[in-house]
Amino acid sequence: MAIPCLPLLGSEKLSMEAGPLSPLSSPPQVVLTQDELKKIAAYKAVEFVQSGMVLGLGTGSTAKHAVDRIADLLRKGKLKNIIGIPTSKKTHQQALSLGIPLSDLDSHPIVDLAIDGADEVDSDLNLVKGRGGSLLREKMIESACKKFVVIVDESKLVSHIGANGAMPVEIVPFCWKFTQERLQQLFDYASCMAKLRTNGGGNGEPFVTDNGNYIVDLYFKKDIGDLRAASDAILRLAGVVEHGMFLGMATTVIVAVLTSIMRRYSPLVLVRKFSRED
Amino acid sequence: MAIPCLPLLGSEKLSMEAGPLSPLSSPPQVVLTQDELKKIAAYKAVEFVQSGMVLGLGTGSTAKHAVDRIADLLRKGKLKNIIGIPTSKKTHQQALSLGIPLSDLDSHPIVDLAIDGADEVDSDLNLVKGRGGSLLREKMIESACKKFVVIVDESKLVSHIGANGAMPVEIVPFCWKFTQERLQQLFDYASCMAKLRTNGGGNGEPFVTDNGNYIVDLYFKKDIGDLRAASDAILRLAGVVEHGMFLGMATTVIVAVLTSIMRRYSPLVLVRKFSRED
Repeated sequence: MAIPCLPLLGSEKLSMEAGPLSPLSSPPQVVLTQDELKKIAAYKAVEFVQSGMVLGLGTGSTAKHAVDRIADLLRKGKLKNIIGIPTSKKTHQQALSLGIPLSDLDSHPIVDLAIDGADEVDSDLNLVKGRGGSLLREKMIESACKKFVVIVDESKLVSHIGANGAMPVEIVPFCWKFTQERLQQLFDYASCMAKLRTNGGGNGEPFVTDNGNYIVDLYFKKDIGDLRAASDAILRLAGVVEHGMFLGMATTVIVAVLTSIMRRYSPLVLVRKFSRED
Repeated sequence: MAIPCLPLLGSEKLSMEAGPLSPLSSPPQVVLTQDELKKIAAYKAVEFVQSGMVLGLGTGSTAKHAVDRIADLLRKGKLKNIIGIPTSKKTHQQALSLGIPLSDLDSHPIVDLAIDGADEVDSDLNLVKGRGGSLLREKMIESACKKFVVIVDESKLVSHIGANGAMPVEIVPFCWKFTQERLQQLFDYASCMAKLRTNGGGNGEPFVTDNGNYIVDLYFKKDIGDLRAASDAILRLAGVVEHGMFLGMATTVIVAVLTSIMRRYSPLVLVRKFSRED
């Protein structure tokens, strides 16, 4: 699995720690699944959680492990007085079934910490999110938090945003073809292909978000360049609700990656040099 | 009725024409209702319509007169092969009942001309729209048109955007209180008051747009200053779908106003110096 981003990160952004959940001692052939890597990153992130916190609970296969872990620590009494703010209906259901006390942004507009996965992470800790479909609620909650810890396996590291798959855009259903076309034209310079996300059942039915909207996935053949400018250009299109670029939001990214020097899997912690609070 | 904008417009932007529908000859006391003024502006705008055009059909009490007039000219055979693109479900119903052939942006992504009302018009022909609740569809269609003719009575002319009532923002229902609070904070410098629009039935039920969203009305006590910057700041808030500032979109504004020199009501045509095609 390629790790295209690491050489670009600069050593000042890296601190390496032994993984508390992967005490493998120099085996000749270590094989961990992608899911196990996600779990390592998720558990490491939960170390940031303290009793009494209001927590943004992420969505997706990596964030799910963090929610499980938080519930486990609550059951064991190692964490107390946690309030969870779920970023999707799915995470709401998961957290509810695990007995995590829940609230929302209306009641708790300040979130101490959010933990969530990402689809792409670049060398400036900008993210692509939303391939799972929950980008809007995630962005609302994660832009309201003091600290935002992102957890990924090494496959999510990219040299530039959009390098390894779709950048999702949530749009209103009204005249979606028109909006799709305008989005594609906007990134003509990056040889963009815009595609409405469907439910995958073969009948072409559009995927519908938790907010009743559609998602258009943008695939870029070339680097889109200035991300802030791209963000504003997308948001200025009437018909667009939100996009999946999370710029300058992550305060910490935790990547579970094979560190060949130590010959074992460890959580490699990439700490953002400048947090949003600086 | 105040006309606070006119002194600011500059004579180069004004051309005055006798109103074809108001041939009142110097009566001592001319009394026209606001609705009659709206009708004068609307009928004047329909003079821009030519057979074969794809037309954006606006929403609201002024635009309604234009739609009625277009249907009338179609019935009389003075216009032919018109395709209307309605900007709301309400206008769709009106146009349908009048027999105007209809389509949408997906089928007709290029609109020759749109005619619509506005809630405010400033001296640069920037608009506030959406007090009727249809701002999103209006903006989608009116940003796709070659010419956008705005029709208002004189009460809509303002010295600056937000000077005479609400600037509406369409938001997703999810955690609307949080978004309302963030919008208010954004314009703290203009002593902003943000208020969720309700159905007015006294039960506090939110008004729901054609797209299933809510509307927060922003009331400013002071000038918000740079409109482009304000627009981007609003759109960057996750949870916002669209706002009611239509900046640099109107190519022509037609205002029905009492011209005291001529002692009669005439459509006073304010032509934008620089159209979007320049």
